[in-house]
Amino acid sequence: MRVLGVDPGLTRCGVGVVEGVAGRPLTMLGVGVVRTPADAELGDRLVAVERGIQQWLDEYRPECVAVERVFSQHNVRTVMGTAQASAVAMLCAARRGIPVALHTPSEVKAAVTGSGRADKAQVGAMVTRLLRLGAPPKPADAADALALAICHIWRAPAQNRLQQAVALHTAHATKGRTA
Amino acid sequence: MRVLGVDPGLTRCGVGVVEGVAGRPLTMLGVGVVRTPADAELGDRLVAVERGIQQWLDEYRPECVAVERVFSQHNVRTVMGTAQASAVAMLCAARRGIPVALHTPSEVKAAVTGSGRADKAQVGAMVTRLLRLGAPPKPADAADALALAICHIWRAPAQNRLQQAVALHTAHATKGRTA
Repeated sequence: MRVLGVDPGLTRCGVGVVEGVAGRPLTMLGVGVVRTPADAELGDRLVAVERGIQQWLDEYRPECVAVERVFSQHNVRTVMGTAQASAVAMLCAARRGIPVALHTPSEVKAAVTGSGRADKAQVGAMVTRLLRLGAPPKPADAADALALAICHIWRAPAQNRLQQAVALHTAHATKGRTA
Repeated sequence: MRVLGVDPGLTRCGVGVVEGVAGRPLTMLGVGVVRTPADAELGDRLVAVERGIQQWLDEYRPECVAVERVFSQHNVRTVMGTAQASAVAMLCAARRGIPVALHTPSEVKAAVTGSGRADKAQVGAMVTRLLRLGAPPKPADAADALALAICHIWRAPAQNRLQQAVALHTAHATKGRTA
């Protein structure tokens, strides 16, 4: 499975591509940051994010895009830009028919470090180890994007089993009603 | 001046086109709502909003798009969807080089009713009167989109004068420095 992780942001949007399956060593294919100038018009910044995400989709052709789920509760100042950048990333993926998965920051931290309250340095250290890199990816947004992709690869089997169970249950229930 | 007003939302995104200049009677050219199913995937809903906005841009070719400025403070539950839908609207406009203007809900209410704390009914009544309609546009999102467009047409001259004053001041300051 090849996943593009996106840590959404207007000033810095982290992007990272990881390939692999749960239970096997993972491979990083690419990592980077899409940047837009803080003094540009908001609409133009969104266009720049779109162009950047599309270049990553064109180059790596991921089977899934994993985006950080944005909450409005914390960090009121930056949350709007984050929500808007995440919308652009989801839109780019959905337009191509690529499935989009959302993971919360604590799900991502728990997946790669074992703790949902791990700090940035811990996440960076584990991403470095899990992908067998020479040094933690900089900036933190790039490391976070890789962590999102790793989280998705590891959580996907469990999510698929859950979906299958729900589908099976629904099928049985329908059968019961029509019998 | 022809303005497309957008009251952003995922379930109902209000859209309305108003033509005119400040100080003269205004004309409504079109009003409607772009709807997306609440049970669809978020990415697919954003694609549907994009398609809807693009149809309005294609049909009416506005010179400006006025979008409600989203705040994260109030109504935490729906604000993310609103921010995401507004990002799609701004993206569609900016991609075509159409200027995007943001107005806060209280600016819009103050522009059309005289009070920044007017309720929905009051805004609907004034939109009906100002555009000489037979009845208030339904749903409220459609009326709000028209109110945004009206607000923009009325505020634009003041905003332009402000921008000109700032530009003039900057030019003088630069001249002063280089002299």
